Amino acid sequence: MITVLTGGTGGAKFVDGLRRILPPEELTIIVNTGDDHDWWGLYVSPDLDSITYVLAGILSPERGWGVRGDTFHCLQGMKDFGEPIWFSVGDRDLATHLLRTRLLSRGRTLTEATRIIAEKLGVRSLVLPMSDQRVETRIETPAGELSFEEYFVKRRYQDAVKNVRFAGASASKPAPGVLEAITKSDAVLIAPSNPTTSIGPILAVPGIRDALRETAARIVAVSPIIGNAAVSGPAASLMASQNLPASVAGIADSYAAFLDTLIVHDSDAETAQALSSISVEFVSTNILMRTPEDKVRIANSALACALPENAAVKLAS
Amino acid sequence: MITVLTGGTGGAKFVDGLRRILPPEELTIIVNTGDDHDWWGLYVSPDLDSITYVLAGILSPERGWGVRGDTFHCLQGMKDFGEPIWFSVGDRDLATHLLRTRLLSRGRTLTEATRIIAEKLGVRSLVLPMSDQRVETRIETPAGELSFEEYFVKRRYQDAVKNVRFAGASASKPAPGVLEAITKSDAVLIAPSNPTTSIGPILAVPGIRDALRETAARIVAVSPIIGNAAVSGPAASLMASQNLPASVAGIADSYAAFLDTLIVHDSDAETAQALSSISVEFVSTNILMRTPEDKVRIANSALACALPENAAVKLAS
Repeated sequence: MITVLTGGTGGAKFVDGLRRILPPEELTIIVNTGDDHDWWGLYVSPDLDSITYVLAGILSPERGWGVRGDTFHCLQGMKDFGEPIWFSVGDRDLATHLLRTRLLSRGRTLTEATRIIAEKLGVRSLVLPMSDQRVETRIETPAGELSFEEYFVKRRYQDAVKNVRFAGASASKPAPGVLEAITKSDAVLIAPSNPTTSIGPILAVPGIRDALRETAARIVAVSPIIGNAAVSGPAASLMASQNLPASVAGIADSYAAFLDTLIVHDSDAETAQALSSISVEFVSTNILMRTPEDKVRIANSALACALPENAAVKLAS
Repeated sequence: MITVLTGGTGGAKFVDGLRRILPPEELTIIVNTGDDHDWWGLYVSPDLDSITYVLAGILSPERGWGVRGDTFHCLQGMKDFGEPIWFSVGDRDLATHLLRTRLLSRGRTLTEATRIIAEKLGVRSLVLPMSDQRVETRIETPAGELSFEEYFVKRRYQDAVKNVRFAGASASKPAPGVLEAITKSDAVLIAPSNPTTSIGPILAVPGIRDALRETAARIVAVSPIIGNAAVSGPAASLMASQNLPASVAGIADSYAAFLDTLIVHDSDAETAQALSSISVEFVSTNILMRTPEDKVRIANSALACALPENAAVKLAS
């Protein structure tokens, strides 16, 4: 059993690689829900959707979010109505939000709604929200405090980031199955996601960080940073707000309390070797995921690090 | 000022004719909301939508409901999810339901939500729901009590109709502007709608029937029945459940308390003349509305009956 912590587009790419080489029943994904927001009155969970869609084989490969080949006629209608359309929702994608919203309004938990939607899409891996309680990632900027989607999508992460907080985290609990997935897995993988706003919310749920420290499973992360820049998105400025350098050192620092191995890009190999003070093993490879083959290769690398005894088998598959 | 009472597809066709010959500001439409229902968690008002769309010039002419050229990708998604799809909602149409639902959830009345949606679609006539309170048309059948949409759309009006009731009607009030529109108009037109389930709910709202009795305006209806059959839909069996003959006599009976003139099809002229005991004037013409020209002709006929002094002007336009 393999458990993955993930959020964002890098995370979805990594999971796309894993699903191509692992039996689906052996994969559990713990997903960031700090980006969840109300949109047009519907409960939208961008990271749960992306992971569910990628596991169902219907994630748009061009966009990295939403459903492959989707149309945007409802969005155009909302535009004609003068309603906000800065968050794009496709017509097919809307069905997911409508169904989830209805399930929640009828008293289902987010875990249950996620399971129902995943099953209906034929997903056989286990997709878990980090928590059934609302934990909202809030970005403090000179323009005021923004939701993650306001910061990331509406304002295209142009605001300076003063701080990041996870509203509701202290009162939240891990969703059912989350702690078990971490403590009972053979390996825990941390996707190449933004450590501050994709993995950070997961770690902010009381109990999850402890489970990572205590699990017997090896914990392997893939760096979302190459050199001093994120592979994509605003990770660098978000990390800076937490006094973390935008580098493999910053990633290692973020996860130092529980991480066994950090997979870094070849060009960061020397930098990583110089970080001898950190109790993390570094492995370098080409971590760019541009093709399905790249994704499979990175997934295999992560599994090889996490399950060294199985490495030959996994890498050969 | 002309006020129209309407519901159903026949009503939308009649309003389509009126909007082509009247200045929009002179037209007020009082719309049946007995068919309103919750669909996928959204507040859907089929008759308000059809009237708003026809006035905006975007009603699908092929379907007679929904938006011209709409797609159904969200519906397909709901089908894939195993959710009910017997009530068709297009992708563009969804924007209307999303916006209305959100306006209502924020405390707007149905009247306000209707006005906002109509204004955003460029409608300059006044579209009024019959009431801001929920009045639900319920159809009693051997299979149990059904909502109107269950009876009409889901089960294609194949059930025998034992009775019809309007749940919530006694506690409802006319929406703001409804009584004024009836009492202060120069004419009140009753569209060729089903008298039981399209006009019936409007008349069930306390105060509206009295206003029709008391208004100084002439009241002219167009028959939805030709011979012993409805031009379309289940009017005949619904009328039978109310002990009304499915004929121009039944239509005249329905509205006898306030109607001045009933426009019937040419083939019903003799039948109508024989109904001398009823204090309603009958006018016969070709009432089938198959083309835009037909709709304009019927609209002109109704206006000529309602405003005889203006007839020459109206008929010439």
